[in-house]
Amino acid sequence: MTDFRWDKLATDGMSRRGRLHTAHGPVETPAFMPVGTAATVKAMAPWDVAQTGAQMVLGNTYHLMLRPGAERVAKLGGLHRFMAWDGPILTDSGGFQVMSLAQLRQLDETGVTFKSHIDGSTHALSPERSVEIQDLLDADVTMQLDECPPAGWPHDKVADSMRLSLRWAERCQRAFRERPGYGLFGIVQGGVYDDLRRESARELSAMDLPGYAVGGLAVGEGQAETFRVLEVTCPELPADKPRYLMGVGRPDDIVGAVMRGIDMFDCVLPTRSGRTGQAFTARGPINLKNARHREDTRPLDPNCDCATCTTFSRAYLHHLIRSEEMLGPMLLSRHNVHYYQALMAGLRGAIERGELTEHAQALAEGWHAGDIPPIDA
Amino acid sequence: MTDFRWDKLATDGMSRRGRLHTAHGPVETPAFMPVGTAATVKAMAPWDVAQTGAQMVLGNTYHLMLRPGAERVAKLGGLHRFMAWDGPILTDSGGFQVMSLAQLRQLDETGVTFKSHIDGSTHALSPERSVEIQDLLDADVTMQLDECPPAGWPHDKVADSMRLSLRWAERCQRAFRERPGYGLFGIVQGGVYDDLRRESARELSAMDLPGYAVGGLAVGEGQAETFRVLEVTCPELPADKPRYLMGVGRPDDIVGAVMRGIDMFDCVLPTRSGRTGQAFTARGPINLKNARHREDTRPLDPNCDCATCTTFSRAYLHHLIRSEEMLGPMLLSRHNVHYYQALMAGLRGAIERGELTEHAQALAEGWHAGDIPPIDA
Repeated sequence: MTDFRWDKLATDGMSRRGRLHTAHGPVETPAFMPVGTAATVKAMAPWDVAQTGAQMVLGNTYHLMLRPGAERVAKLGGLHRFMAWDGPILTDSGGFQVMSLAQLRQLDETGVTFKSHIDGSTHALSPERSVEIQDLLDADVTMQLDECPPAGWPHDKVADSMRLSLRWAERCQRAFRERPGYGLFGIVQGGVYDDLRRESARELSAMDLPGYAVGGLAVGEGQAETFRVLEVTCPELPADKPRYLMGVGRPDDIVGAVMRGIDMFDCVLPTRSGRTGQAFTARGPINLKNARHREDTRPLDPNCDCATCTTFSRAYLHHLIRSEEMLGPMLLSRHNVHYYQALMAGLRGAIERGELTEHAQALAEGWHAGDIPPIDA
Repeated sequence: MTDFRWDKLATDGMSRRGRLHTAHGPVETPAFMPVGTAATVKAMAPWDVAQTGAQMVLGNTYHLMLRPGAERVAKLGGLHRFMAWDGPILTDSGGFQVMSLAQLRQLDETGVTFKSHIDGSTHALSPERSVEIQDLLDADVTMQLDECPPAGWPHDKVADSMRLSLRWAERCQRAFRERPGYGLFGIVQGGVYDDLRRESARELSAMDLPGYAVGGLAVGEGQAETFRVLEVTCPELPADKPRYLMGVGRPDDIVGAVMRGIDMFDCVLPTRSGRTGQAFTARGPINLKNARHREDTRPLDPNCDCATCTTFSRAYLHHLIRSEEMLGPMLLSRHNVHYYQALMAGLRGAIERGELTEHAQALAEGWHAGDIPPIDA
């Protein structure tokens, strides 16, 4: 059996090139995890996800505990078998989505109770139950239950919330069932307050957890604040443990976070954007709905070797999106996840070569160049 | 260049095992063509369609003339390149869908005018324009424009309509641009009236067209009527030309029609059913939405070797359909089209062996046996 561990293979400034070992195989870091909300990365079969180069996916505890239910997934052999994903899976704690999706939620020291947004049934999520659910799902990485304060909260409220999350981290650590290849991550909170972020990171570091996440930074505080928080937080975290920035983000957010010492990411952006016709390319995001693409025989991204770009024209993708054909979201989600994976592979190579700054500069120049001009322009 | 022709390889009673040669390759018959309405077989990538064993797909002239437009498809290199389908394509004439989908339609001797259901724009479809559009799309098989009378019309109205379709067939034949590997099919009409079906079939046969369709039989007249019309019609058609039953049908409809001399089929049923959670199996249709499947770890159809059945459990498919996840329709459409293709392959083999009657009997017994019992029953 594999020990759960993260090996540092190379560094470049604050950035790290590593390898996470889990019960379901290794993950090259920096890594991007596509989000498999309800046991499926939306509009993609698991073999499509694997073909993009993704090694690890994220599952949402909130969605899965409500439907089909954690005990049911366990009975069916665990989440890997259920969704036919053989690679590692990280599950969130459910806390973030309880606060954003559920109804009539009430939070106190013991945990949070809420009504399901699906059928109105009442549920409770404590640190212990969250860990138990993630165990039932058979997650390779379990996330601690935390409270994620909204942007704009004052220092004293964020301080109380952050310390609640610390106490919950300890309860999660006690509840976590140790076994080879499985790990529990603590989550640094503290909003935009440097002293609180430092306190949270130090207290969690003292717990010697298998990994650490930075939470509370995909709630509208802006890229500059995110980067500043990472600059304050990352140096406080153990150098030999993986660091995961939750829910982030756009390609330039990811590059900046890698340069500040982050190893793992997840975000719905590539799949959600794909469903609305937006695609990420080496020359920035483009919207396939735009009429400029309707007779464009060129691929979406001439630099991309995904099945979408090597098979279809922009004109066809435009047609699918305009016609609301399911194949549109299918092909664009696939391209976007592929784009994110290629981005991560590029970052890993640049760190190995000690050229991350130059590489990031070249990426930014491409994004700012804007889309290739229309054929008849 | 390949001549457009159909080779008869074997017969068993009225049924025929053959091979259709087209500009884009051969099609083993009896064949089922998945419907690629708007230049996509819904919820399936073209490589998924090919993997089911399908060799030929159908495109809808009505949808494509409105969006993206026939001239635009031609400019983009034709329908094959546009949708990345290298195999043969048959397009319908647009007439049937004008009558079922368009608004403010007016039909006279010259053709039909209508308003688009998408944007209200006015369009005209004459026999000549229908052939021209299908030429612009680069269809391997072009269908004549016809009028498809609704079920329940009296003899005299159906007679007038059938003779209008005959005059339109002649105009389509004059308008059709002959080239190697491309063929025009006439359409037998005449409703449920034997004398009219015979007259239509004889007049069309005298035109020596590359192929013949039987139209007007997917409009609610019932299986017994359909079979009776085929028994009247098929003997009147040339023995050396392919016969295509339009818009049919369920697996048992197809088996019965093959036994009465039909070679080609199309139907939205496998893909449309897939999108609502219904799946075809060796033991009849089942609805994955049903709660009986929610903890069933067995494959949808244990006899099926498609990617859906070899990878996922019924429990997972149930979860996807209940959660309205796009992967549900993707996986079920794929299975259903695979099921239809396997059905056709089975029929072809049975005709070759001269065992079609026994084979049809065995299929029917399976369908009537009903679904495998629940695990805990």
